[in-house]
Amino acid sequence: MTKNNIAIILVAPQMGENIGAAARAMKNFGLGDLRIVSPRDGWPNEKAESVSAGGIDIIKQAQIFSSLEEAVADLSYIYATTGVSRDINKNYVLSRDLAQDMPAGNIGFMFGRENWGLNNQEIAYANKILVIDTDKEYASLNIAHAVSIICYELFGAKEVLRADLNNTQALASANDLNYFYEHLFASLEEKEFFRVPEKKDKMRQKIRNLFSRIDKLSVQEVQILHGIVTALAADEK
Amino acid sequence: MTKNNIAIILVAPQMGENIGAAARAMKNFGLGDLRIVSPRDGWPNEKAESVSAGGIDIIKQAQIFSSLEEAVADLSYIYATTGVSRDINKNYVLSRDLAQDMPAGNIGFMFGRENWGLNNQEIAYANKILVIDTDKEYASLNIAHAVSIICYELFGAKEVLRADLNNTQALASANDLNYFYEHLFASLEEKEFFRVPEKKDKMRQKIRNLFSRIDKLSVQEVQILHGIVTALAADEK
Repeated sequence: MTKNNIAIILVAPQMGENIGAAARAMKNFGLGDLRIVSPRDGWPNEKAESVSAGGIDIIKQAQIFSSLEEAVADLSYIYATTGVSRDINKNYVLSRDLAQDMPAGNIGFMFGRENWGLNNQEIAYANKILVIDTDKEYASLNIAHAVSIICYELFGAKEVLRADLNNTQALASANDLNYFYEHLFASLEEKEFFRVPEKKDKMRQKIRNLFSRIDKLSVQEVQILHGIVTALAADEK
Repeated sequence: MTKNNIAIILVAPQMGENIGAAARAMKNFGLGDLRIVSPRDGWPNEKAESVSAGGIDIIKQAQIFSSLEEAVADLSYIYATTGVSRDINKNYVLSRDLAQDMPAGNIGFMFGRENWGLNNQEIAYANKILVIDTDKEYASLNIAHAVSIICYELFGAKEVLRADLNNTQALASANDLNYFYEHLFASLEEKEFFRVPEKKDKMRQKIRNLFSRIDKLSVQEVQILHGIVTALAADEK
């Protein structure tokens, strides 16, 4: 699934490695439209290709522009990503709130050069400033990391299919677990584990509490637990 | 502001550049405790230093370990970060839901090697799997990007790192749990539980996976588990 209404725009990027890493991150999060304005080291760029890994098709299809104006011409809404708040009278949104902020239409995300980001003239092309909130002590994000975090937020903006992450092993029922407790308690009884009769119920409760906290215990795992109790309780040969 | 109860653990990382980029991302998002298990190219690593940029202090103070077991010994809750769902019966949480999931205490986040991530034996050390949701078409995240995204989520979680009001009991550390495993495995060995030698490691891993899923295991509960094993393994009177 590719969100084809979203463009990532790298403005005057310096290092091919970062362009490649940005393309890889785009691919990881289902984006495909990469636009590059005046890459310092020209184009094509070998480093960009090798670092892009599975995102190589994005590098191959990237559009190269000599001006930002051309690069954003077909977009209806543009965010300028900056690490720190700027002294510009423009609205900003935090990356965490991006999903709720985006309008419909063709949307672009601008990222600046490695050493000093976007200049104010470039930011003027944006409808809004997009801020990745960082620790004040060191706010300078690697450009590919910034792209990665924004792509990650954009990916989260759609429905997540949580269901298919669930593992498929057969889960133990409450009954399965009860048989295990009976087995364990009987064996413990036999081995005189419950030395203080008045504390027996309380201790059994603690043991139940402990094992019942194993989330999503499978049938196979309950069998392993039975096996452990049986083996341990057997008399030495 | 540094969250000093959170450790980032890189397991057998291959490229110094990625270690450096991970340290830079940690610095961006206010983390400081970097632990590296068996870095492929040794330590110190020049590439790691140069790429870390403003995170150089994190590289300088990084702790190097030769085993994962030592690296996580003092941690009370461990997440294993994986890009795809695994056929392991362990709980998982999506990175987006991490803030709500974290218990109080010393928490570690494990990240695997560049080419194939964490192996199942390593994942067995974790209490939970942490999944960065990606596009199915290309799920392989650069390791430093994965670290960056998790650090970004942790930074957003700062207000949520609250004292756990429900559970005032002292939580067991990974070390406490290791002593229990040693006790259990030794007792099982004695009772000839591991009948098929080739399956022994696999079975031990399954048992670790099972017990490590007990959420927020307390010191007292680990003592109960020791007591159970001791009692069961004792010869009948």
